[in-house]
Amino acid sequence: MAKVINVGLLGSQFISEIHAESFASVADAEVMAVASPSPGHAASFAERHGIPHAFTDYHKLLEMDEIDVVTVGIPNHLHCQAVCDIAAAGKHVVCEKPLCMSLAEADRMIEACRKADVKFMYAEELCFTPKYVRLKQLLDEGALGKPHLLKQCEKHDGPHAPHFWDVDRSGGGVAMDMGCHAIEFFRWILGRPKIKSVYAQMGTHVHADKTRGDDDSIIILEFEGGCIGVAEESWCKLGGMDDRAEVHGSEGVAYADLLHGNAIETYSRGGYGYAVEKAGDTKGWTFAIYEEAWNYGFPQEMAHFIECVRDDKQPEVTGEDGRATLEAIFAAYESAGTGRKVELPFETDAKRPIDLWLRE
Amino acid sequence: MAKVINVGLLGSQFISEIHAESFASVADAEVMAVASPSPGHAASFAERHGIPHAFTDYHKLLEMDEIDVVTVGIPNHLHCQAVCDIAAAGKHVVCEKPLCMSLAEADRMIEACRKADVKFMYAEELCFTPKYVRLKQLLDEGALGKPHLLKQCEKHDGPHAPHFWDVDRSGGGVAMDMGCHAIEFFRWILGRPKIKSVYAQMGTHVHADKTRGDDDSIIILEFEGGCIGVAEESWCKLGGMDDRAEVHGSEGVAYADLLHGNAIETYSRGGYGYAVEKAGDTKGWTFAIYEEAWNYGFPQEMAHFIECVRDDKQPEVTGEDGRATLEAIFAAYESAGTGRKVELPFETDAKRPIDLWLRE
Amino acid sequence: MAKVINVGLLGSQFISEIHAESFASVADAEVMAVASPSPGHAASFAERHGIPHAFTDYHKLLEMDEIDVVTVGIPNHLHCQAVCDIAAAGKHVVCEKPLCMSLAEADRMIEACRKADVKFMYAEELCFTPKYVRLKQLLDEGALGKPHLLKQCEKHDGPHAPHFWDVDRSGGGVAMDMGCHAIEFFRWILGRPKIKSVYAQMGTHVHADKTRGDDDSIIILEFEGGCIGVAEESWCKLGGMDDRAEVHGSEGVAYADLLHGNAIETYSRGGYGYAVEKAGDTKGWTFAIYEEAWNYGFPQEMAHFIECVRDDKQPEVTGEDGRATLEAIFAAYESAGTGRKVELPFETDAKRPIDLWLRE
Amino acid sequence: MAKVINVGLLGSQFISEIHAESFASVADAEVMAVASPSPGHAASFAERHGIPHAFTDYHKLLEMDEIDVVTVGIPNHLHCQAVCDIAAAGKHVVCEKPLCMSLAEADRMIEACRKADVKFMYAEELCFTPKYVRLKQLLDEGALGKPHLLKQCEKHDGPHAPHFWDVDRSGGGVAMDMGCHAIEFFRWILGRPKIKSVYAQMGTHVHADKTRGDDDSIIILEFEGGCIGVAEESWCKLGGMDDRAEVHGSEGVAYADLLHGNAIETYSRGGYGYAVEKAGDTKGWTFAIYEEAWNYGFPQEMAHFIECVRDDKQPEVTGEDGRATLEAIFAAYESAGTGRKVELPFETDAKRPIDLWLRE
Repeated sequence: MAKVINVGLLGSQFISEIHAESFASVADAEVMAVASPSPGHAASFAERHGIPHAFTDYHKLLEMDEIDVVTVGIPNHLHCQAVCDIAAAGKHVVCEKPLCMSLAEADRMIEACRKADVKFMYAEELCFTPKYVRLKQLLDEGALGKPHLLKQCEKHDGPHAPHFWDVDRSGGGVAMDMGCHAIEFFRWILGRPKIKSVYAQMGTHVHADKTRGDDDSIIILEFEGGCIGVAEESWCKLGGMDDRAEVHGSEGVAYADLLHGNAIETYSRGGYGYAVEKAGDTKGWTFAIYEEAWNYGFPQEMAHFIECVRDDKQPEVTGEDGRATLEAIFAAYESAGTGRKVELPFETDAKRPIDLWLRE
Repeated sequence: MAKVINVGLLGSQFISEIHAESFASVADAEVMAVASPSPGHAASFAERHGIPHAFTDYHKLLEMDEIDVVTVGIPNHLHCQAVCDIAAAGKHVVCEKPLCMSLAEADRMIEACRKADVKFMYAEELCFTPKYVRLKQLLDEGALGKPHLLKQCEKHDGPHAPHFWDVDRSGGGVAMDMGCHAIEFFRWILGRPKIKSVYAQMGTHVHADKTRGDDDSIIILEFEGGCIGVAEESWCKLGGMDDRAEVHGSEGVAYADLLHGNAIETYSRGGYGYAVEKAGDTKGWTFAIYEEAWNYGFPQEMAHFIECVRDDKQPEVTGEDGRATLEAIFAAYESAGTGRKVELPFETDAKRPIDLWLRE
Repeated sequence: MAKVINVGLLGSQFISEIHAESFASVADAEVMAVASPSPGHAASFAERHGIPHAFTDYHKLLEMDEIDVVTVGIPNHLHCQAVCDIAAAGKHVVCEKPLCMSLAEADRMIEACRKADVKFMYAEELCFTPKYVRLKQLLDEGALGKPHLLKQCEKHDGPHAPHFWDVDRSGGGVAMDMGCHAIEFFRWILGRPKIKSVYAQMGTHVHADKTRGDDDSIIILEFEGGCIGVAEESWCKLGGMDDRAEVHGSEGVAYADLLHGNAIETYSRGGYGYAVEKAGDTKGWTFAIYEEAWNYGFPQEMAHFIECVRDDKQPEVTGEDGRATLEAIFAAYESAGTGRKVELPFETDAKRPIDLWLRE
Repeated sequence: MAKVINVGLLGSQFISEIHAESFASVADAEVMAVASPSPGHAASFAERHGIPHAFTDYHKLLEMDEIDVVTVGIPNHLHCQAVCDIAAAGKHVVCEKPLCMSLAEADRMIEACRKADVKFMYAEELCFTPKYVRLKQLLDEGALGKPHLLKQCEKHDGPHAPHFWDVDRSGGGVAMDMGCHAIEFFRWILGRPKIKSVYAQMGTHVHADKTRGDDDSIIILEFEGGCIGVAEESWCKLGGMDDRAEVHGSEGVAYADLLHGNAIETYSRGGYGYAVEKAGDTKGWTFAIYEEAWNYGFPQEMAHFIECVRDDKQPEVTGEDGRATLEAIFAAYESAGTGRKVELPFETDAKRPIDLWLRE
């Protein structure tokens, strides 16, 4: 029987719920502790998920010898310090997207993990999403010929937590929050070629009362080899979550819709409990999703990392990938701020991506 | 760590492949042996799946003390004897659909398992299919009101193995091969009310050169409480497998399509490896399925049975359920043979369902 | 320039609105008069559509020499007398579905038109519905091989006018009101083979407080040559009108959905004016239909009849077709009443189809 | 009875076929003549459509007194002279898209029609496409709130005629050939606000062996009031024509697919005659379109112009609209050439849009 890998979670909100659920279906992993600074949050989270230890100070969690892996599911501006602390404690790291606030922070995190010789996974779940994994296989087996256009979008009606509206804490709007998915998705599905340039169109169309960040963005990337990636991100889309990808090639084309197809078309006069993320009301027509975490690949992602730790393998998505994505996000905000296509590599000492667009 | 449950497989064809794959993802189960009478089949199957023991005579497999559970994935006319033998060996049984050839056989199998005090699961995977599980939840939570019409269909271009064409071995055509899915699906989703009557329309439209069995059937069931079930089964449907269900209720309606939505819409000029069961050519437009076993609920089904064995619980679908389904299948063939709605309970000493339709 | 054909309308409700709209797009037809017994109805209808003459007594309309064609859009139990009167006045007739209340009435109407030598079109618009016309072409050009299974359904949440609930005036429930569409559709698409048998399952599931008629019905027809037709009709389907057809053949299969595809997928937080027939609320997700009359083929149907009158041709759908459909409806109610497949030709002196099911 | 308007056609290829068919369904229009320089083309076209007069020299057509309206369906680089000649002959003009080769040409054409006091319609059929007309109504009636993002795409596997590959005759690639549809569509649906800026990404991905023009383009437009338009155009998309639009607003979202929904989902083992534009093979799955011209709005467009001529009204889409679209196309090529967002108004004396991208 394989050794069980023990896990600690930093954070107790939306994404940490998904982490806890995901590890629950990984046979040889066990969540041993959770940490969250808000009084009571960690304790109630631990109780809900049957986790033995709960802390308000994550350093206590890092002191637990039996913990092998720590996941980072806290606000963006706290990622860098947390990852460095985890590495220093000699534990393997899973860090949520986007990686951090600045390229300097990214370098620091990568270096900390390298020096401590711990594994560092950048948690881009789209690289594990079953439908997208199949899409990559179609491309890889030549069903579509040489790709020239990729599209991926993620759209819903607003972020999970209010701190996303505050660009001081989030570093950017929807292009940062969800554009990072598309960028890493494009890199991964193409086998990680270099990004040659980035252009972005951004606006604050619907939520200007709540944020200075962009709430609807289009990002165009040119990759080495000539393929184009178009990312569409929105916090202005009503009627339920949307997550779709397209691959257009010289010999074919493929369309993958993560949610609408994988759902039950439902009409309910009176409404019901839960249809899908951001569905709004469930009266009338809805599309009822099922096995949501599996559908996105979260448990598969965590199982992958557990396997990497156990068998000493490199994760599919690394801190370097997170950094490359972040670099493209900085370039996107620079482009939205200047109206120009921005060539990569792009260096900047900006503290947050959004500063390059707001330019106050 | 939970005790590992050891499994033996009878059969080495299509469905046993699925059994092996499914147990591979069940953490606390391990397939220890496989048996198949055709020389070499079991051995190559065992090698392909990393199974330690292979036999041509399944009695050898039953002699292995360490085996806890045995699955039956062999032709219909061999089910009864195999299940009785397994029970006599004191092992828990998973028996594939349809349960067996006659109601007398069903009674014998149920009694054998009862007497040996072993668990007996009738392997109707639709009760574990994630999309249909969600559909049942929608119904159960009241989203659709009181149901008055259920539909379920399974359609493709012909059975997996040639022995299905031979009614002496299969006992019936498509109404028996796939109608059993719909019947148990209806019973399960409604909470297993009694079936009041069955009417069936059957024909041999396209494959009369290969079989005397029905290749396209429509079965209408009336349930206690007034709900109607309409099952459509076909071996004449080109263009890839079709498996869909609908629930129509007083307060809403829901449509669940197992394959088309859960797939990547793909156009490939040159074609590619595999799209979906019975897809035919993969040139042009296809719908590329992914995680096929999971999509149908096979691993979930096997995990459920392992849990039942380990924790001494009653399986979700029992031999009695298999018998009730078979009774409705007999009634369906009787109806197709007489042009009348057949009331249940229906008793018959027919040896095979199809005899009631062919009436030679 | 072609001679203009002058039209009179009997009736001022739902279907007569469609008649008026449809003739408006037929270049060489002009609606000259409308008759409705309810005081004020004809006058306001005439004003709304710019029709010069309005009557409460339709005999006055029939006295107008300049009128060439009269359409019958009044309750079912008044069809027979109206058609006989129109024929006696020497005018061509378009009679709405279902043809009339009994087979004896049908014979009387057909004979009256034959004797008066006027054209008699049975207004089954599905024979002119553009998508279904294309579907017939696919079948006729061999794209699908030999057909073995046809399906057509029409489902919504209840009839347009309260008199449909009263079986004394309507003669039957949803199997009569909408089953007639499917039956004539099957006959037409197959080239009008004889119907060999009819089986029907009927129930009053949701509207028992309002009617003794069936509100959900399934009708299975066997045609000469072996093809099966399955008609599904419902007055219990929420969430908007549904009208679909399928043709399953030895060489292919085709699916035609009249409404969902031909619509704009729309999410509106606040709702809007009109989405589609029986949509219910327009808040949330709806499918917004457009050019509704054209989509169903109503203007095409009327243009066809005008052409028949002008060029002295036989209509595509005749009184005899209406009678054949009605015969199948009678057989369907007989089947639902007896639980038996009913062979055709079926003779009955029942006054209304539903009497054969209710059998009080 | 209304006066009949007599029509002459310049051109005898793809689009002129559509013009002839479209006028055939306009009650008060009659095509009297066709002109095409290729020997025999006009004559055989005339015979096919029952047109009384055929010319190789279009000046002969313009000399016919009885002709009221002339349509221009010839290669782009001949539009300007033809329109000026038609206007000089005192006839009303319908000019196909794109309007012409340069902004100077556009000015000349508009001025010629103004001076001759003839009506000038820029033939953007999307403004008459029934599904898009309904989409505009949804937006106008407030169903979607304030729009912030519009999308429209047109994609297939290459142009109708080889002269499109030759940028000397076409003036540009797919951004010019089909981008003009999207640009005018956006202007029209928004009520024709000013375009503030244009950004474009262009490439020659698949057809570099045949053309120097762009075969896959993405154009982003900013409109006064803040709405963004994203046009996607491709000559690299296999598997049949694609034409879709989306409107994203503060209160809702709507998706309109011109082809896939308005089609019959068809699987044919042996294939059949015609499925849809650029479908490739019809074996396997296809989507069979029907009433194609109507679906795109061509007859409606021509009926509209006939009505404008007869009733002396301004066309819905004018030469000025064609010019505004062309200005945006020039800006798009300038943007693709410079990697910058281009502000409008944009003045250029470039002879052809593509020169601003190729910059040789």
